Amino acid sequence: MSRRIRQTPFANKIEEHGVSGFTVVNRMLLPKAFKKSVEEDYWHLNSNVQIWDVSCQRQVQIMGPDSEKLVQLMTPRSIKNMNVGKCFYIPLIDENAGMINDPVLLKIENNKFWISIADSDVLLWAKAVAISYNFKVNIIEPDVYPLAIQGPKSEELMVSIFGEKIRSIKFFNFGLFKFLEKKQVIARSGYSKQDGFEIYFEGYETGEKLWDTIWKAGKKFNISPGCPNLIDRIEAGLMSYGNDFTRENNPYECNLGKYLKETTHDFIGKSALEKIKTIGINQQIRGIIFDEDPCPNCSNPFPVFSENDEKIGQITSAIYSPRINKNIGLAMILKKYWNKGNKLIIHTPDGKRRNGIITSLPFPE
Amino acid sequence: MSRRIRQTPFANKIEEHGVSGFTVVNRMLLPKAFKKSVEEDYWHLNSNVQIWDVSCQRQVQIMGPDSEKLVQLMTPRSIKNMNVGKCFYIPLIDENAGMINDPVLLKIENNKFWISIADSDVLLWAKAVAISYNFKVNIIEPDVYPLAIQGPKSEELMVSIFGEKIRSIKFFNFGLFKFLEKKQVIARSGYSKQDGFEIYFEGYETGEKLWDTIWKAGKKFNISPGCPNLIDRIEAGLMSYGNDFTRENNPYECNLGKYLKETTHDFIGKSALEKIKTIGINQQIRGIIFDEDPCPNCSNPFPVFSENDEKIGQITSAIYSPRINKNIGLAMILKKYWNKGNKLIIHTPDGKRRNGIITSLPFPE
Repeated sequence: MSRRIRQTPFANKIEEHGVSGFTVVNRMLLPKAFKKSVEEDYWHLNSNVQIWDVSCQRQVQIMGPDSEKLVQLMTPRSIKNMNVGKCFYIPLIDENAGMINDPVLLKIENNKFWISIADSDVLLWAKAVAISYNFKVNIIEPDVYPLAIQGPKSEELMVSIFGEKIRSIKFFNFGLFKFLEKKQVIARSGYSKQDGFEIYFEGYETGEKLWDTIWKAGKKFNISPGCPNLIDRIEAGLMSYGNDFTRENNPYECNLGKYLKETTHDFIGKSALEKIKTIGINQQIRGIIFDEDPCPNCSNPFPVFSENDEKIGQITSAIYSPRINKNIGLAMILKKYWNKGNKLIIHTPDGKRRNGIITSLPFPE
Repeated sequence: MSRRIRQTPFANKIEEHGVSGFTVVNRMLLPKAFKKSVEEDYWHLNSNVQIWDVSCQRQVQIMGPDSEKLVQLMTPRSIKNMNVGKCFYIPLIDENAGMINDPVLLKIENNKFWISIADSDVLLWAKAVAISYNFKVNIIEPDVYPLAIQGPKSEELMVSIFGEKIRSIKFFNFGLFKFLEKKQVIARSGYSKQDGFEIYFEGYETGEKLWDTIWKAGKKFNISPGCPNLIDRIEAGLMSYGNDFTRENNPYECNLGKYLKETTHDFIGKSALEKIKTIGINQQIRGIIFDEDPCPNCSNPFPVFSENDEKIGQITSAIYSPRINKNIGLAMILKKYWNKGNKLIIHTPDGKRRNGIITSLPFPE
């Protein structure tokens, strides 16, 4: 442990709950496992409520008279009609239309945005663009530490702490709620397919008080400490930047075309993106259900082959789903083979050749 | 483990040698410990030779007719007189003269540079600057995986593999050497105070062959697997970005003024840096030797106080040195107290109040 890999305000609480592993996102610790197995954790998340330390979802705060101009230049998704209180999932692309992040944008005020990032230094990117364009903006990483409350009982839990007004927050919207006399941004969102909220918590010192308050109120809802659950994430079709796509991929390959219907504004990568739109793409992310016993960890992508033994793609996230009773994965698949129902063969590192089939995303209920 | 946290070509070899911990740098695994304790490892490094997988020192390759222009714009250190074959330690700063990285720049060819980075996304920074200035450059992360050979016996070992020409490589210079018919960049450099080399290895697939070749030849030099050693690093006064300084610090605070004597060229952060130079700085990194039993891990900085109980700085890296028989640390210290020989008091998280003294950097032999 060193200062470079940053702790979170909830570190002591997580220790108390018996965290048994971490990963690193944005140079900050993200808990990876507690006492439950991934499967036990999955079932718990499906029917109860969990508290997740997702502080590693760092914010890039862009303020100032040119803040909207800068944000708009950074994404092909139009933010023209974005109101304060909204969350937008925005692809960020480079000059080749390669994905450099897939953050959630929050419009906190007019001329104040938070970009809630996946694992790459969007702050450096934004600063360099702002400097070069001479924009009047101030760009910082604020002291905001997201805490996620996820699971079907999360609304009841949140109401018991913050009041009935919580119910009125629609998906991908946020409101302001007081905790210890300080206003906190609370959004209905989260990295699971369950209902849930993300508290964009400001105030490092009082983080443990927030945790304790939620934990105490959560007992009657059978609350458990947790973290993004791989089974739930894949079933939901939620992608992970760096895993399921990288700078080598464009937004269309990542099924993000639906956010790019109105791209008349100027943005970085525009000509590359338009060219891709005209020519069309040759691969795209799909869900795959595949056979046999639980597959090994997908730390390196599993190559995917056609029935004629042609390499047609790769699975980048995979795990056994106890609900579907099969392995499930997210995969980048060539166009010729990406239709629902297509059969394919997955080579897993245990040497097995497993039969698989393309499915819709999110995975069928 | 996931694809996001990238493995290195030497991963299997490191496993074989019994790696017992990793950290993450630039979203790639860096071994943190093998079977030896940090102290045993320190003594071994001091008198033998070690092989380190430092693949996480990722390269940002900048090629093209405007490559020198772009690199020069990114650093206040002049590269006007830099020849092919040279390595330059270059501060990279933002518009406020805050440090965004402290990489080593290699001039591979005219119009081809590698920036060997510490832990931040310099690639995104460089790309955004290049786009905005419309520079004719191509910026990629090449498939280069640095392997460090460190320790007093490293020259003999390297000569036994690559021939006598190795001896002619001066500190912070590199040459080209063939391995399996492919030319490899080998520099005399490394993250230790010992003599040593860094092989900027190209060719993921043959990485294990390189490792095996070095290992076999190294046996008679008592080679051991290793990794940057905290005792050696602090004694050498080698800083770690994210630990000992961050974007909050400017190059002068980091003792990098010696690289900034000729700053007539244009670069990002120039006006901020000139202002700082005129006004002067109020804090700077110093070495501290401090008392009592081995201090706890410095995962959070240790606050440093004057004898009058004024907070005067913080220690950001610390460990017990078995050679000095005291604790040693790197600290950012206020001007009034930064002179060599000054006494101070360090508060360690075990509750102890330890007496310390400012020393020179690197630590005295």
